This record gives sequence, C-alpha cells and structure tokens, in this order.
Amino acid sequence: MATKARNIQRREDALSHDRIVDAAIELLDAGGEDGLTFRALSERLATGPGAIYNHIADKDALLVAACDTLVARTLDAGKAGSSPRAAIRTLALALFDAMDAHPWMGAALVRAAGQSPSVRLLERLGQAIQALGVPRKGQWAAASALLHYIVGVGSHNAAQSQFARARGLARDRHLGTLSAQWAQLDAALYPFVRSVSAQLPAHDDRADFLAGIDLVLGGLASAQKK
Amino acid sequence: MATKARNIQRREDALSHDRIVDAAIELLDAGGEDGLTFRALSERLATGPGAIYNHIADKDALLVAACDTLVARTLDAGKAGSSPRAAIRTLALALFDAMDAHPWMGAALVRAAGQSPSVRLLERLGQAIQALGVPRKGQWAAASALLHYIVGVGSHNAAQSQFARARGLARDRHLGTLSAQWAQLDAALYPFVRSVSAQLPAHDDRADFLAGIDLVLGGLASAQKK
Repeated sequence: MATKARNIQRREDALSHDRIVDAAIELLDAGGEDGLTFRALSERLATGPGAIYNHIADKDALLVAACDTLVARTLDAGKAGSSPRAAIRTLALALFDAMDAHPWMGAALVRAAGQSPSVRLLERLGQAIQALGVPRKGQWAAASALLHYIVGVGSHNAAQSQFARARGLARDRHLGTLSAQWAQLDAALYPFVRSVSAQLPAHDDRADFLAGIDLVLGGLASAQKK
Repeated sequence: MATKARNIQRREDALSHDRIVDAAIELLDAGGEDGLTFRALSERLATGPGAIYNHIADKDALLVAACDTLVARTLDAGKAGSSPRAAIRTLALALFDAMDAHPWMGAALVRAAGQSPSVRLLERLGQAIQALGVPRKGQWAAASALLHYIVGVGSHNAAQSQFARARGLARDRHLGTLSAQWAQLDAALYPFVRSVSAQLPAHDDRADFLAGIDLVLGGLASAQKK
C-alpha cells in the first residue's frame, strides 16, 4: 500500500503543468519541433499520453506553454531598476540569446501571436516606451516595431545559426569564403557589398542586432523632439 | 524525325535554368518547402530528375535560386529615380508583400545568407544608405539593421499569416477575441496591453512594419546630426 501510494504521488508530480513543460523544453531543445511528440513526452514522464492531455490540449498549446515559460524566465532575469532605455536593450539581448539557445522559440511565437508570451513582451516594452515619454498616439507603433524587430531578427538569426550547425559550416571559414566572393563581385554592380566585404568575417550578429535596437531608440527620441 | 526533333527541342526548353526555377516557384507557392521535390519538378517539366540535376545541384540550391529570382524581380520593379529614403521604404514594402505572397522566402533567405538574394538586397540598401550621407563607419550597421528588419519581420509576418490561413482563423473575428482577452487582463500587471487592446482589431501589419522602417531611418538621421 505504501509503495502504491508513493507511485501515485510520483505520477502526480510527473503530471504537474510545470514538469510537463520542462520536459517539453528538453525535447524541443534536443530535436526541435519534430522532436516534440506526446509519445516522447509520455515516455520521458513515465505516464500515458492521455494523462498529459488532461493538462495540455494539443501540441500547439504545449509549444506555446514551453515558449511562455522561457519568456517569463527571461523577463524575470532582466528585472532591474534601470532606465527605460537600458531595460529595452537588456530585454532585447536576453531574448536574442534565449532564441539562439532555443531556436524553436521563433515558431512558437508565430503560433502565440496575441497570447501570453507575446503579451508579456509587449507589456514590458510598452511600459518602457511610456517611461521614455513617447506620446500616447505613437506608443502602439513603437512597441510593435520593437517587438517585431526583436522576435523577427532574433528568430531569423537563430534559424541561421541552426542551419550552419546542421550543415557543419565552421563560422570563420564560411565567412572567409563569402568575404572573398564579395570582394570579387562586379565593381560596377556591387560597389557597396565590395566595400564592406572585409567587415564580414569579423562582424558580430549580436552587436549588429543591438545596433538596430539603438537606431529604433534613436528614431523614437528624435520623433519626440519634433 | 521531325516529331522527334520537336520533342527534343521541347525538352531542351523545359530544362533551361529559368523554366526550372519558375516551376520550382509554382511548387513552393502551392505546397511550401515540402512541396518542392525533384520528383514533382520533373513531372511538371516532363523530364527526368537526372536532367534537372545537370542544372541545379540540390534542393537547397533550387530554393535559393527561386528566392533569388523573386528578389531580383522585386528590385527591378522598385527601380525609380526617387530619394534614397523613398527607395528604402519602397524596397521594404515590396519585399514585405513578396514574402507575404511567397511565405517560403524566409526559409530560403536563411539558407542564402551571404549569397545572391541577400547580396542584392544589401547592395540596394547600402547604396541608399550611402546616398543618405551615413558616414562610412556606420554604413555596415545601418545596412545590416535594415536588411535584418525587413527579412526578419517580413518572414515572421508571412509565417503568421500562413499559420492563420492553415488554422482557418478569420482575421477580424480572431483579433476581436484577442482584443477582448487583452481588455480583461489584470490591470496591475498589464496596464499597457490593456491600454492598447482597442487598437488591436484595426491595426495594419504592413503599416506597422513601415512605421518601424521609419523609426530606423529617423535613428539614422538623428545619429548624423550628432
């Protein structure tokens, strides 16, 4: 009887929403969206798929819940009494890093438009934008631009890193090859790309991402002065 | 003999690079990346897969070539003697529309980093940035921010439209439901999202996308004044 009670206890632990989501994150990290199946999840949690369905409706909901947990953790880590500008930059970089570490987050955020993970991000960005003094009529566009920049550029970057890993492309060598190709483009047709070809090998995607955030913030500041 | 000669002629037409790419675009539009197989392509072109491999190395190369063709057409359509600012806005909107019409372009651009379609875009953006008078040391960051914004936000938007279509979500009704959910969020935790909930149903993704481009352009202009 005691053993049976313990087993039931263990199974109930296994089926808490949080444990299901943590197991889903592990499966997604290991095998991407294809790796997340109710079968793999029930094996990992030592339970039946039916029991999991009591907690989560379907795979979309599971993907969104997994993403929401990571977004909430990222936001918790970035809570500081800093300036609104610093808060936006910190949030942007933390999301960029989270998406790079969990490349499936981009697809999850597509499914989750208007739902919790996006709403959490929109709220944090919106509060910072209000604190910056952006007038009410410009707040939607500002928050929307920042949210879409962070999510769009972050997921594109993550997809690119993942693709390079999957193809076994060594970054330095690959960028060196592309840089040499850029330098040999037709000078009449591609003067700009030739002129920046030497910058390609040493460029830093994360720094370039942040430079874009700074341009948006600069645009917001200059719109307020008008 | 005459018939045989005509058949050979027809087969040679079918196997030109341009015809292969046009057929690939049709398959991608109809069935996404999964719909593009050498088998489907050879059926459509009435030839054997082996013959196609003489023109295109593999599926990645085909996807990149299809994307490159659409990017080149988009750039041709946007060639005008307009101001650099207008050129950037026109290019951004044209790409946004092209990616919305061909949602597989985002994945193709991930594979094509540093190759022709991205290089074409980078060149057009870079020339406009130079014409705006952005100093040499800021040109890479400016072109990179615009390219990543356009491609990242454009592909995220296209993925979202495609997801909504696949799930049969009617836009007005879906946004109305989300808006009602936003309005009922906890006022202490979500003051910003509640404050913009009424703006959600009537918002225009394309206009919001362009507002973000304008913020980046505003940031560039204000950086030059410093």
